[in-house]
Amino acid sequence: MTPSTQRRWLVAGRPVGRPLVDADFELANGPVTAPSVGQVLVRTCYLSFDPAQKSWMENAASYMNPVEIGGVMPGGGVGVVAASAHPDFEPGDTVFGQLGWQEYATLDGGALYKAPPGVSMSAILSVLGSTGRTAYLALMKVGKPVAGDTLVISAAAGATGSLVGQIGKIAGCRVIGIAGGPEKCAWLTDELGFDAAIDYKNEKVRARLRELAPGGIDIFFDNVGGDLLNDALARLALRARVVICGGISRYNHDPRSPQMPEGPRNYFNVVFTGATIQGFLMPQYERDYPEADARLTEWLRAGLIQPRADLLEGFERAPQALMRLFEGRNVGKQLLKVAEG
Amino acid sequence: MTPSTQRRWLVAGRPVGRPLVDADFELANGPVTAPSVGQVLVRTCYLSFDPAQKSWMENAASYMNPVEIGGVMPGGGVGVVAASAHPDFEPGDTVFGQLGWQEYATLDGGALYKAPPGVSMSAILSVLGSTGRTAYLALMKVGKPVAGDTLVISAAAGATGSLVGQIGKIAGCRVIGIAGGPEKCAWLTDELGFDAAIDYKNEKVRARLRELAPGGIDIFFDNVGGDLLNDALARLALRARVVICGGISRYNHDPRSPQMPEGPRNYFNVVFTGATIQGFLMPQYERDYPEADARLTEWLRAGLIQPRADLLEGFERAPQALMRLFEGRNVGKQLLKVAEG
Repeated sequence: MTPSTQRRWLVAGRPVGRPLVDADFELANGPVTAPSVGQVLVRTCYLSFDPAQKSWMENAASYMNPVEIGGVMPGGGVGVVAASAHPDFEPGDTVFGQLGWQEYATLDGGALYKAPPGVSMSAILSVLGSTGRTAYLALMKVGKPVAGDTLVISAAAGATGSLVGQIGKIAGCRVIGIAGGPEKCAWLTDELGFDAAIDYKNEKVRARLRELAPGGIDIFFDNVGGDLLNDALARLALRARVVICGGISRYNHDPRSPQMPEGPRNYFNVVFTGATIQGFLMPQYERDYPEADARLTEWLRAGLIQPRADLLEGFERAPQALMRLFEGRNVGKQLLKVAEG
Repeated sequence: MTPSTQRRWLVAGRPVGRPLVDADFELANGPVTAPSVGQVLVRTCYLSFDPAQKSWMENAASYMNPVEIGGVMPGGGVGVVAASAHPDFEPGDTVFGQLGWQEYATLDGGALYKAPPGVSMSAILSVLGSTGRTAYLALMKVGKPVAGDTLVISAAAGATGSLVGQIGKIAGCRVIGIAGGPEKCAWLTDELGFDAAIDYKNEKVRARLRELAPGGIDIFFDNVGGDLLNDALARLALRARVVICGGISRYNHDPRSPQMPEGPRNYFNVVFTGATIQGFLMPQYERDYPEADARLTEWLRAGLIQPRADLLEGFERAPQALMRLFEGRNVGKQLLKVAEG
């Protein structure tokens, strides 16, 4: 039976220009709210973590509703319908969406997606949902791969990067991943089928790019910013597309502080190559979500994409799961198991 | 009659990471070469100057043939056909193209364009030729103006910027120019019809942009780089287009020197706006040159575009004319009159 109270993680601080700390979150008890007409009550099973969540806490992302101090921490997740007052959902359905960090979420049915049959909950969050849509849409609609393109990805062993590389292979690209450490690099080449990997902690990125992409980079998919972006901009091919999807090297710093990585001096190479640097703004592609979901589901079932989750367990560890992203500790999608499915 | 010898300016130095100096050029006598079959001999009347010429001397622009030390300094100009071995040209025709810094150029007919009737030589170089094509094509094909867009231009009183603003007005944009000093700013608003101008030497650019473009910048047309680019990136509207056409703040510095302006830290705003930063690489738009030439000629004749040349006189002053660009001394297109038309 559904209990009448639940645990929630509330936003307690704004981590502007600094790393996240424990005190930015507060664990609190709250009521479980029965669904009104059109709403659905969801029991959270897994939560999903993304670096953008820190910017949400800062109210830096203009595309999101403002986050209030004392409000439930926003975040994606997958769960099971516990009660429904919406005609499209029934108790027992597996659903995903922006559940927030709470054991029970009461949401409008229109904000939830039904899970495709035969896909595990952790695969839903690592391959579908916002991670999969980001990887698919940012690569396909902004990067615009053409078979034969050389695609270079930073934070390639992260949730988004590892998917982008696999989708790039399906699209016929030569895929080079940049990641930190030999284990992550080996995973990319040996298990995910990347053509090459560069260990930025132990190799000179620019020299390795020169070796591995002698004809230049057609698509650079950036999740990092800072030196890696600058190094890639030095090696652009004619008409290259640079997709700015994330900038994890920036998220812990105040824009005006000396610790904030410098802007990319090599941006000017776009003039010599006619290249494009474009930001990926998810809500612009909302009408393409069904396309992304359908193709990713198909590729997942066909074994062309391997989901990989980095799993913590226990609702009380949600802040810790988010902080792992900024320490570069996750391989694949960082998830938290909250309850059995 | 055509003489048998002529004066030429040769490239004598590579100004990499430093300003131009007199010793980078050498004035020399050379032969006048009679045209072979398919060639045309042109008597140079006006030369045209562009900051990109410095990068040509550095062999930094991959789209150009390498420039040799001891070779004739490349540059655009307009002149009169003195002798022709090409069926499309006759002595007396006014033509323009890459004549080089020489009193007489012997060129393939295919590299020359006939001047449209009724357009003065100085208007050809300030509104047609590479300046006009750059302004028209970079704005139209990269900036993609939509009537009602707010268009902001750096180095707006320069040859390219002042044309871009006038074309932007024709396209229905609200046009804001950034220029150095009250005189240049007054010229933009009072004579060229810009909606507003910002004097970056005496005003705070970011605060003024906030006042003048409260809904954000739809198109930023950049000829400068450095702080101006960074300030504009802070104020992008949703789906903004940033056209990187030039970077005059960068041209005198070594990429690795501390004097080189920092890269734009605010590049990351493209993620919050879905904006695009794209370089304008002229040769990519070669098939569109006739479109640019035709429309600019029409607008010039209709009085919708005002040519403005900043004229020096005397072949021996060519290096000085080029250096004026880097001192921000020119208003409108820097030209040099070499001989009567």
